[in-house]
Amino acid sequence: MFLLQAAAAPLFAAKTVEQWGAFELALAGPTNGNPFLDVNFSARFTQGTNAVEANGFYDGDGVYRVRFMPEKQGEWRYVTKSSSAELTGRTGEFMVTKPAAQNHGPVGVANVYHFAYADGTPYKELGTTCYVWQLQPKALQEQTLKTLATSPFNKIRFCVFPKRYTWNTNEPIMYPFAGNPVATNWDFSQFNVKYFQHLEQRVADLQKLGIEADIILFHPYDEGHWGFDRMPSNVDDRYLHYVVARLAAYRNVWWSLANEWDFMKEKKESDFVRFGEMVAHDDPYHHLLSIHNGQQLFNHTLPWITHASIQNGAAVEESGRAEMYRDVYRKPVVYDEVKYEGNIESRWGQLSAEELVFRFWNATVAGTYCGHGETFKSDDQILWWSKGGALKGQSPARLAFLKKVLADSPAEGIEPIDRWQQPEIGGQPGKYYLIYFGRQTPTNWAFQIPKPPLEKLQSAAGMKFTVEILDTWNLTVTPVPGKFTLKKKDGYSYADQAGRTVSLPGKPYLAIRIKRVPASAKE
Amino acid sequence: MFLLQAAAAPLFAAKTVEQWGAFELALAGPTNGNPFLDVNFSARFTQGTNAVEANGFYDGDGVYRVRFMPEKQGEWRYVTKSSSAELTGRTGEFMVTKPAAQNHGPVGVANVYHFAYADGTPYKELGTTCYVWQLQPKALQEQTLKTLATSPFNKIRFCVFPKRYTWNTNEPIMYPFAGNPVATNWDFSQFNVKYFQHLEQRVADLQKLGIEADIILFHPYDEGHWGFDRMPSNVDDRYLHYVVARLAAYRNVWWSLANEWDFMKEKKESDFVRFGEMVAHDDPYHHLLSIHNGQQLFNHTLPWITHASIQNGAAVEESGRAEMYRDVYRKPVVYDEVKYEGNIESRWGQLSAEELVFRFWNATVAGTYCGHGETFKSDDQILWWSKGGALKGQSPARLAFLKKVLADSPAEGIEPIDRWQQPEIGGQPGKYYLIYFGRQTPTNWAFQIPKPPLEKLQSAAGMKFTVEILDTWNLTVTPVPGKFTLKKKDGYSYADQAGRTVSLPGKPYLAIRIKRVPASAKE
Repeated sequence: MFLLQAAAAPLFAAKTVEQWGAFELALAGPTNGNPFLDVNFSARFTQGTNAVEANGFYDGDGVYRVRFMPEKQGEWRYVTKSSSAELTGRTGEFMVTKPAAQNHGPVGVANVYHFAYADGTPYKELGTTCYVWQLQPKALQEQTLKTLATSPFNKIRFCVFPKRYTWNTNEPIMYPFAGNPVATNWDFSQFNVKYFQHLEQRVADLQKLGIEADIILFHPYDEGHWGFDRMPSNVDDRYLHYVVARLAAYRNVWWSLANEWDFMKEKKESDFVRFGEMVAHDDPYHHLLSIHNGQQLFNHTLPWITHASIQNGAAVEESGRAEMYRDVYRKPVVYDEVKYEGNIESRWGQLSAEELVFRFWNATVAGTYCGHGETFKSDDQILWWSKGGALKGQSPARLAFLKKVLADSPAEGIEPIDRWQQPEIGGQPGKYYLIYFGRQTPTNWAFQIPKPPLEKLQSAAGMKFTVEILDTWNLTVTPVPGKFTLKKKDGYSYADQAGRTVSLPGKPYLAIRIKRVPASAKE
Repeated sequence: MFLLQAAAAPLFAAKTVEQWGAFELALAGPTNGNPFLDVNFSARFTQGTNAVEANGFYDGDGVYRVRFMPEKQGEWRYVTKSSSAELTGRTGEFMVTKPAAQNHGPVGVANVYHFAYADGTPYKELGTTCYVWQLQPKALQEQTLKTLATSPFNKIRFCVFPKRYTWNTNEPIMYPFAGNPVATNWDFSQFNVKYFQHLEQRVADLQKLGIEADIILFHPYDEGHWGFDRMPSNVDDRYLHYVVARLAAYRNVWWSLANEWDFMKEKKESDFVRFGEMVAHDDPYHHLLSIHNGQQLFNHTLPWITHASIQNGAAVEESGRAEMYRDVYRKPVVYDEVKYEGNIESRWGQLSAEELVFRFWNATVAGTYCGHGETFKSDDQILWWSKGGALKGQSPARLAFLKKVLADSPAEGIEPIDRWQQPEIGGQPGKYYLIYFGRQTPTNWAFQIPKPPLEKLQSAAGMKFTVEILDTWNLTVTPVPGKFTLKKKDGYSYADQAGRTVSLPGKPYLAIRIKRVPASAKE
């Protein structure tokens, strides 16, 4: 007589999860051999004809997990697959509910050059960088989260692997692999699951704050000290599969294949192509995926690259430069590194706050996005750029002002209006214009906008607009009384019917915001 | 008894040809049916293990030709292939001699961002545009050639097809297809061989002047008037095969797939990819191959594109912009259209000479190349930009000065020196620097150059340099007496040991040329 042995109950199986939340199933499985190498484990999630394959991962102590970020509400079912009989053919179902109020889903590309959450809410990127904040002592990590909670930033770039560099020579609180840290004698076949559990916790903490986690998968700031920048290629690949399996179900994850990819002397450009194709293949939700350069731009036209993540401070020194990469890539352009506000000796870490904010505004009117970082010398060796902590600079308050301006700007994004002639004007033709004067100190501005494109030209004469003066440094918005009514000026531009001009305070860093008055609005 | 009929002697078969000259074989062949459609004809040229396949073409009146540009000296042999027995298996040999003194071979890419002739002679691109000069009345064509002969230009862009546009509404002297021009009732299956013979003659005329022919294969300035911008795709393809078969053996040919490709409303981007792949496949010599944009850049990272041919006047308004496309494409960047010197109403045709020359210099110090054009209103409707004729502007004399500066610059090309910090400096580190002040009017300049790259840094202190002041508008070169000796100034730059400065005349459009004094040179 044979007894059919019923499969043990799952260690954990969520019964409900909100849309774009992370469903999790945990099963007990084999502990013999090396589960990281020996056991494949995945699950297929289905709802009617929708099906998603998600890789699982070994989380130590005989626990195997698989996670899933449902993109549709309603009942979903799963069935597991594995090289181990124990983990094969396990089924179940769960209910996907409406997302909570602050959950708008993952961020994706919208309108070619911009971003939006999955529910359609515009996402106006305003990022910062703290490369290894999560590998610092716990109190410092908590301080970083507290600082972020009241900062304007809605994205943070940070590395999976520890970093060793000027101002950052302390060892991390943990290591990603088993082995002897002093001898740097790693067992690359054994992930340190606590390291990755901690990483996930920090991604979840950021998610609660509404902050996207731009996770840097490789970086050069190791130079063989630990050797995570020069692992064998099969270890690189296993590491990527593992990280994506663990993290892809977190809706606020973005993948950044590398920081300064070209400074990784032990890697070839083709390695990063392989990495990019692997991540794009493994990630069922196609989170944003980019790669950041040192001196050599990557080929951002490759199809798996969702947006151009660019280091180039010079490119945002004026809006006419900032726009140029849009034309090349036809993707969102994020200047993730434009030098930092600070006072260290290196010329990349000594921008004034004025200069950094100026760069953000140049990027903004050019229809691109800019990144913040801070490098103030400090006796405690804690520089925001690397370790987090407290913000000391003058730029964040100004970036909070910019954030309000962005929140009030057209949902479809700020686009260059007449990009090869007047790059300082961004907006949406016939609807909204933002003109940035930068370091000029104008005392007067004659109302004038570029001719709207042909399809909106018909009714341009007579359109009415309001004008506001923005002091982007002193953080004031001053409405100009009355309306401005369009009249054709020449073949390329429209002015006000009455030839109105606007008095300006003769200071640097002024902007003008022009909004269309709906035809139905009362005069 | 059977009589083996000997093949008729070729109508023409060159017995000797210089290296990079055009060998030609002409055979009598079928005249029945439609030879353009019915007969394939090509030849295989061999020298030892070197083999080149070249397509032939029908030249009317029963004459079939195949041309070949030998890239190696010595004896070559050929054997023909054809769908017609008459044209099959014809063999012969010929001798390829040393090139004549002015023949340096075709131009190709050198040092990633630059150009050189096949014999290694640097080619410093300095181009102009006369879109349909060869389709104007004969006297005007001759005048254009005469003007070009004394101009600084070493490349001219022009179209195969006629152009219809403002200032250019006259009909061409001939049409590319048989048919009725008044009814624009073309027989696309019958090329007008005289049209293409004439085109070849003009390419040969340019070759004699040492001018490269940047041949524009498609363009939008037709809009259905003749319909050459909207031919069926099989006609497009046959036309390309035909033009490449006819012209590829001319060493001074460059292929420009289109002018303003994105303004061709009847073509898709994928059509141009097909065209590019076809031309690259058909052309045995891989002449330079590019595609020029209107508002939308083409994807110049595609492997068959040899250099980025870009319309964007704004990009050369300052050197910091001009450099940016180099980083993206890792290919030579040629700003083939940056607006024109002239006085017409359109804003793309009213640059001052100062502004156009300024743009050339910005492009030059950025390690890129710029293009000339001229649009002066004229009662005779003859504008250089479209029809050629005489040059009227003030820029060509200044471009002749620039040409001398380029001829004197490093053979390997002018490269950005510290591109994200001081884009106004081009040159070769430790060897040659060209600093362009543009519209600034300096009266004094403290000698200073960026730190040479690490591999050349060892011996930087003590290096000696001469300095010359270039007035790029008034065309003077003023040597500064004595030498300047390097001393480290800070982590990023070197100054003169004695802190020497250079007095400048306080005018716009000045440049400074700095050349290394060889260590062996006498003091």
